[in-house]
Amino acid sequence: MADQRLLSTQQVSEHKTPQDCWIVVDKQVWDVTDFLDEHPGGSTIILKYAGRDATKAYSEVHAPSVLKTNLQPGKFKGVIDESTIDTTWIKPPPDENPRAILDNEKPPLQTLVNAHDFEVVASKTANTKTWAFYSSAATDLITRDANKSCFDRIWFRPRVLRNVRSVDTRTKILGGDFKLPLFVSPAAMAKLIHTDGECAIARACESKGILQGISNNSSYTMDELRTAAPSASFFFQLYVNRDREKSAALLRQCSANPNIKAIFVTVDAAWPGKREADERVKADESLSVPMAPSKAQNDKKGGGLGRVMGRFIDPGLTWEDLKWVRQHTHKPVCLKGVMSADDALLAMQAGMDGILVSNHGGRNLDTSPPSIITLLEMQKRCPEVFDKMEVYVDSGIRRGTDILKAVCLGATAVGMGRSMLFATNYGQQGVEHLVDIMQDELETAMRNIGITSLDQASPDLLHTGDVDHLVPASRAHPYAQAIAKGRRGSKL
Amino acid sequence: MADQRLLSTQQVSEHKTPQDCWIVVDKQVWDVTDFLDEHPGGSTIILKYAGRDATKAYSEVHAPSVLKTNLQPGKFKGVIDESTIDTTWIKPPPDENPRAILDNEKPPLQTLVNAHDFEVVASKTANTKTWAFYSSAATDLITRDANKSCFDRIWFRPRVLRNVRSVDTRTKILGGDFKLPLFVSPAAMAKLIHTDGECAIARACESKGILQGISNNSSYTMDELRTAAPSASFFFQLYVNRDREKSAALLRQCSANPNIKAIFVTVDAAWPGKREADERVKADESLSVPMAPSKAQNDKKGGGLGRVMGRFIDPGLTWEDLKWVRQHTHKPVCLKGVMSADDALLAMQAGMDGILVSNHGGRNLDTSPPSIITLLEMQKRCPEVFDKMEVYVDSGIRRGTDILKAVCLGATAVGMGRSMLFATNYGQQGVEHLVDIMQDELETAMRNIGITSLDQASPDLLHTGDVDHLVPASRAHPYAQAIAKGRRGSKL
Amino acid sequence: MADQRLLSTQQVSEHKTPQDCWIVVDKQVWDVTDFLDEHPGGSTIILKYAGRDATKAYSEVHAPSVLKTNLQPGKFKGVIDESTIDTTWIKPPPDENPRAILDNEKPPLQTLVNAHDFEVVASKTANTKTWAFYSSAATDLITRDANKSCFDRIWFRPRVLRNVRSVDTRTKILGGDFKLPLFVSPAAMAKLIHTDGECAIARACESKGILQGISNNSSYTMDELRTAAPSASFFFQLYVNRDREKSAALLRQCSANPNIKAIFVTVDAAWPGKREADERVKADESLSVPMAPSKAQNDKKGGGLGRVMGRFIDPGLTWEDLKWVRQHTHKPVCLKGVMSADDALLAMQAGMDGILVSNHGGRNLDTSPPSIITLLEMQKRCPEVFDKMEVYVDSGIRRGTDILKAVCLGATAVGMGRSMLFATNYGQQGVEHLVDIMQDELETAMRNIGITSLDQASPDLLHTGDVDHLVPASRAHPYAQAIAKGRRGSKL
Amino acid sequence: MADQRLLSTQQVSEHKTPQDCWIVVDKQVWDVTDFLDEHPGGSTIILKYAGRDATKAYSEVHAPSVLKTNLQPGKFKGVIDESTIDTTWIKPPPDENPRAILDNEKPPLQTLVNAHDFEVVASKTANTKTWAFYSSAATDLITRDANKSCFDRIWFRPRVLRNVRSVDTRTKILGGDFKLPLFVSPAAMAKLIHTDGECAIARACESKGILQGISNNSSYTMDELRTAAPSASFFFQLYVNRDREKSAALLRQCSANPNIKAIFVTVDAAWPGKREADERVKADESLSVPMAPSKAQNDKKGGGLGRVMGRFIDPGLTWEDLKWVRQHTHKPVCLKGVMSADDALLAMQAGMDGILVSNHGGRNLDTSPPSIITLLEMQKRCPEVFDKMEVYVDSGIRRGTDILKAVCLGATAVGMGRSMLFATNYGQQGVEHLVDIMQDELETAMRNIGITSLDQASPDLLHTGDVDHLVPASRAHPYAQAIAKGRRGSKL
Repeated sequence: MADQRLLSTQQVSEHKTPQDCWIVVDKQVWDVTDFLDEHPGGSTIILKYAGRDATKAYSEVHAPSVLKTNLQPGKFKGVIDESTIDTTWIKPPPDENPRAILDNEKPPLQTLVNAHDFEVVASKTANTKTWAFYSSAATDLITRDANKSCFDRIWFRPRVLRNVRSVDTRTKILGGDFKLPLFVSPAAMAKLIHTDGECAIARACESKGILQGISNNSSYTMDELRTAAPSASFFFQLYVNRDREKSAALLRQCSANPNIKAIFVTVDAAWPGKREADERVKADESLSVPMAPSKAQNDKKGGGLGRVMGRFIDPGLTWEDLKWVRQHTHKPVCLKGVMSADDALLAMQAGMDGILVSNHGGRNLDTSPPSIITLLEMQKRCPEVFDKMEVYVDSGIRRGTDILKAVCLGATAVGMGRSMLFATNYGQQGVEHLVDIMQDELETAMRNIGITSLDQASPDLLHTGDVDHLVPASRAHPYAQAIAKGRRGSKL
Repeated sequence: MADQRLLSTQQVSEHKTPQDCWIVVDKQVWDVTDFLDEHPGGSTIILKYAGRDATKAYSEVHAPSVLKTNLQPGKFKGVIDESTIDTTWIKPPPDENPRAILDNEKPPLQTLVNAHDFEVVASKTANTKTWAFYSSAATDLITRDANKSCFDRIWFRPRVLRNVRSVDTRTKILGGDFKLPLFVSPAAMAKLIHTDGECAIARACESKGILQGISNNSSYTMDELRTAAPSASFFFQLYVNRDREKSAALLRQCSANPNIKAIFVTVDAAWPGKREADERVKADESLSVPMAPSKAQNDKKGGGLGRVMGRFIDPGLTWEDLKWVRQHTHKPVCLKGVMSADDALLAMQAGMDGILVSNHGGRNLDTSPPSIITLLEMQKRCPEVFDKMEVYVDSGIRRGTDILKAVCLGATAVGMGRSMLFATNYGQQGVEHLVDIMQDELETAMRNIGITSLDQASPDLLHTGDVDHLVPASRAHPYAQAIAKGRRGSKL
Repeated sequence: MADQRLLSTQQVSEHKTPQDCWIVVDKQVWDVTDFLDEHPGGSTIILKYAGRDATKAYSEVHAPSVLKTNLQPGKFKGVIDESTIDTTWIKPPPDENPRAILDNEKPPLQTLVNAHDFEVVASKTANTKTWAFYSSAATDLITRDANKSCFDRIWFRPRVLRNVRSVDTRTKILGGDFKLPLFVSPAAMAKLIHTDGECAIARACESKGILQGISNNSSYTMDELRTAAPSASFFFQLYVNRDREKSAALLRQCSANPNIKAIFVTVDAAWPGKREADERVKADESLSVPMAPSKAQNDKKGGGLGRVMGRFIDPGLTWEDLKWVRQHTHKPVCLKGVMSADDALLAMQAGMDGILVSNHGGRNLDTSPPSIITLLEMQKRCPEVFDKMEVYVDSGIRRGTDILKAVCLGATAVGMGRSMLFATNYGQQGVEHLVDIMQDELETAMRNIGITSLDQASPDLLHTGDVDHLVPASRAHPYAQAIAKGRRGSKL
Repeated sequence: MADQRLLSTQQVSEHKTPQDCWIVVDKQVWDVTDFLDEHPGGSTIILKYAGRDATKAYSEVHAPSVLKTNLQPGKFKGVIDESTIDTTWIKPPPDENPRAILDNEKPPLQTLVNAHDFEVVASKTANTKTWAFYSSAATDLITRDANKSCFDRIWFRPRVLRNVRSVDTRTKILGGDFKLPLFVSPAAMAKLIHTDGECAIARACESKGILQGISNNSSYTMDELRTAAPSASFFFQLYVNRDREKSAALLRQCSANPNIKAIFVTVDAAWPGKREADERVKADESLSVPMAPSKAQNDKKGGGLGRVMGRFIDPGLTWEDLKWVRQHTHKPVCLKGVMSADDALLAMQAGMDGILVSNHGGRNLDTSPPSIITLLEMQKRCPEVFDKMEVYVDSGIRRGTDILKAVCLGATAVGMGRSMLFATNYGQQGVEHLVDIMQDELETAMRNIGITSLDQASPDLLHTGDVDHLVPASRAHPYAQAIAKGRRGSKL
């Protein structure tokens, strides 16, 4: 090779355009200008090394002989003069990564790949009060965190060699047809994070074919949402007002709105929970909502929106009041916020159309049982419930695997609240992107445990041994029998 | 809109007072001076944006048309000239947050929202020795931390749709009526953190209607406390002196003091625990207390106040001595520091009026059982105890939910010691604020599990599956039977 | 000693060469030049202190009198003049540690002492995409991490006083003889980390006498690997192509290649898992592999190599297709990716020659059961399987103790995938070094539990009490009986 | 008070000596010179505030009136002129804390209050190799850490109201009388951390009345130790040499040394463990020990002293060899390193005088069972062992509570190895200080559970519910029955 022409790094560097492109591989210099368009991997990757040493990148994907085989001999220009190699030459090529995202700037929607990403972005870009109100939960956050971690402690028992070419996630909820066993849980004041608020969610649910729950404390009225998404399906989440007539008026609106498919009466917020992060940030006192007499206010306890916006809710609500609700609507009535098998049974006996097992995302009473544990309790203690009414679950759902686990344990569908608010940070497109992600994760999980439709889901596909000790075995406390006489009550 | 007047940001900025207030919303400039008083959300929030762009804050709470509807056309001043927008213009308005709190400065009392906050503030503002003495516990802090974490591992089983409009936390303790099932556990030397010391606590308990335990090592005498809070109720915590006559004198003082309702004889401090954080900081040797012959001293082991202040305590105390106590007082006598079902039974058989299940806040023997576990042990092994005498619990109580769990498991009332000392950092008002917080947390928890008075509390409302394996099932160790002959003792 | 000559530190410092070497011990100055060669500990350690004070190093290993005993009186030169001691004198001698390793530089191979070390080095020196592709796993990484931690929660029950002088790790796999119960699990695209890729692995396996699995997505063809390592033994890991003829062609190549000992049909990747770290880094689109129609591509979901390189895999594969595989090869056929005792039984009934219990390193479905838990499930529910076919395990193996635990629970051999890729960072020598390490760790573990050959391994040598609750007891979920009627399926 | 004299801060500051001492309390200036000697709290605390404002310190311990009551009116000098208060004045007095300890400097021995402190100091002040050799353990350190954490997961069941005035920790071990149920576990090469090495330990044990185990790899010979501590009691820890005659010689030395009370034959080190921290640091190759043919050496695997110093140990040792040991000594023979109930039984049947339950501090085989778990296993499966021979425990003991728990579970005494080496950092006094600490902790624990001598210790005083699932229930693995046919062995 003594007759090979020596080329300095300086000389090679000058041929660095698409019109004149040399690269170095294994010390040999090649003119690849004409090859750019033929390269199966595209020209971009080659141009990255135009006028540079491409040995490392090349050898990661090609056999040594590929270049020589594909180029004509005339394209060989010589060998690099190693004495001319300097620090400039060995500097790696500029990276094609996009510019850094500032910490308080929303990254491009497409770069968010899961529900956690939406939460992280909201924590950095929503204003302090909005983040505090959305993310907070009761006191020490034990239930909020256990809602998720208990899902993570339930293991799949995946089956293999089943034909999973096509998978079907369609779900019937309260008689309606939906594309997923997933709905948007009702959550208050979506406008805080995006001017379109619940309207953005409604348009996304309409386009994606899923059900949306409208909060009693929504930033937009149910009629505005219907206008925004004329073919969408909703349910309305009712906080029963101390002034019953106000609630009756809302029920009349529901009856008149054909998009409202059912009423969900909230029962897990008899009294506002203590959400300390929310209390610690002052509320904007000009804030109000259109379907409730709620007005933001700061007081001695702090600025907790979750507390002051719920002052109208009647803590005196009982099973009897459900009859009153029935009298004011012909639509299906469900309970939101069941936290025990006992109340699931009572709901069934009260003729409810469905129940949403929920602890309000851990926002109301800390150390309330994680929702998936309550679902297990129902499977253990009152499985007949699942035959008589539909059962939904929310609180802690972040992954397609979470959805699938709830469905395996008998849920008809699951709700996501906070995550949907965080997705609303990007408006309608954000919510659509999150729904797409959840669908993809659910389908992936279904295929990888070996099922193709949701009616194949069953408890057999799970192992719950790591959480079974958290599930009450019977109504009575294990020691309750022994202490019948020993109870505090007997002394007062 | 071509005829709209263009206004520079500079021009708008000049109208920034309550007397002349312009704001910009969606590029439109409005004069809102006359509207300030009419704004339902108050003028403050508008003035924050005086002479500024208010679009973001506005659209979070208002529909786009509100401004146009509420203001007369003449109030529209023109549109902003976007070419004049600069960095000054887009800077957010100054925050209304108060000035930063320095790390060693007490924040305003009202900003403290829970018992943890008081602890955090004390850790930063109490002097090194006071913090070491109050916060320390035996050796590796295992019991101190488990006292709290075992509460957190007990789950509620909340019931819904029960009328919880009014809730009643009144409690009868040793025949007296109190507003809460919560008392101040006796804790030594409250004057270290506030000059009013136990007097501040006494005044707060008097005003809030709760019971206070007076430590034998209190900074003030029981008579001084009675003077400070003439209508307060106390119990006196007695360390029995090696010199019995000294203790007899104290018992006589108790008998003469009508505010003292009972005597609590401490039994969980037979020997001073090893509190290493306390030992590592030198004690001020001029320190003493009025009702005990204790004097601070530094020695070879360190400066542990908890150790040297307790030198007079008799490690030879036995069940027999309780008869001696009875001979010196006609008031009810309780034991403080029961840590096993076995001793709870013995206390019942000895005719005690009550027992305080306590491990001294984990300060005496590390890996002593958490108090709530001992309460469960009693429910399992000797439930009859709860019928014969009152049972109290302390060590680890930080939340209203903790109080409620203890009451569900049979406690008549619970005590808080350290947290009350940390609240005394703010004097009487600090303790009152903490009691208010605890009451609010307790009521919130009661309502959210569906009960309205404490006699409805029962073990059925809890699930203890996550800690049941920590509860001894019987007096005998599971292996004890098998090893009767195998014991070390048989070899000596 | 008044007549002893005083020597300044300056004077002593001048005698610091092998030809003229003084040292100071206990203030006495000695000429040790002639002693250098006689020193049992070698001359290096003495020369480190040439012209210096060696008291500390000397007294750590020698009795005070050794120097005086071994040197002639004339070698004593005097005592150090303590008034001349300065900061230069007391500075410790230069350390013999090698120069610091830069963070993005591979440290010398010999300094890597375990599998973790190879992973750490790869995390710092492989390019971003390679590290993302190799190290990533499905969604929240729960299965990836539990694969290892479950091994760590199984305790040995070591036996003592057994003759373990010689230990034998030889293992028969599918009729072939190997030096270890360890093989290289098939893993895609080893060339990304080293230009020799799978060829390096093949040469190392050949020299070390262990079995290598060739990935369907290998960077080199099976013929190239045979050329690289003519006497090596391989199995071929098949992803069945939607276009069956492509797979048939590969099976024909296997049949023609005498080094291929078996076919492993992958069944745990019915659908590509969601490996988020992999998706987040752009793929080099010029990347392809020779034995599959896979081509790297970036799309809306990201740049996940694990996903796009597997698009040809047929998600419709069923037990029936295994017959088709048998028709195209006469070699043993095993399944890779069994995750339940149920499918282990079906595999046995389908006449498989072996199964590889695997969850794809946690890369496909998060919260799939850890492999060692599945092995325990098989021991509990279908122990007969171990008699009828060979059982292998991978996913989570990092230590010789892991290998031994799997063998104790019935595995014929175990596979390591990721670790072997990380070792390939150093080419053939890296893989050889890792195999040596694993062999040493395995032999050490065998000896220390008291066995000398693998057929002495048994479950009796383990205690699995810390993970037994994670092992399904029967096919049916504990609640499944009770909920037969309560299943969601009954409602659709 | 208009006639009170105003004094500037400057004026007050001048009176700051013991001969002329003014202080300010509540703005009043007092001359306390004559009072200095009378102050019950000593003069030091007052002089700290000489010429300063003492209000805060004063009011923490005194009632407001004390000063006025105790001082004559003439000592009142006036009131502070508040206009003269400046930053100098309000600066707190200089703290009496000693100068800061440098990070690589040993703090004063008296400031170390527990075994952990000695470890922390050693980690900072011992040389790199010594720290690596002493602190390291096998591979992932799981057993090393579990040895301690399993003690922490065992709870006491303390009893109250028992006379614990005097407590007796005296213990009979192998017929000898000792002050504590604590001995120094044999550990190699104590000279690395202090020139006196094992001699320092011997002198400390002699003065404190406890037993010392001499390592076969001790830095000093057993005769040197006897010389150092003529009335001390030792046992000798024997590694049986491949060359039996070498071991026989040591046994003869033992027989001739009246201070040697027993032989402990090590059985938990059949093969050197893989201690990676030790391997990663080069060994000083001049290092050797006097009673074994061991010599430090660096090789391909690294510089592991634990490995190379043990090359002479015979991995072929069996129960048969114990007879050979008996033939060479008339002294009691015990086994060191039993890790299962099975071998405890065999040891009893072989007529051993005692066994030391130990996993070599987790240094030999990672995931060997924690020692206290093995003790529980023996209580469950072979309690008769405790009647026939003495049982000792080491590995993980750091606290007096650990000692007491082991004794409650049947141990005659426990050993501490690493901690004693770390204490040797301070020579004889360090070891004495650590022994004092352990005695104090043990006595405190005994008193606080309500016992006064060790023969009152029993399993009844513990609750082991948090670790019981880690204790093997029977020799057979729970699945072993089912898999008798399914074993790997049946296939080879």
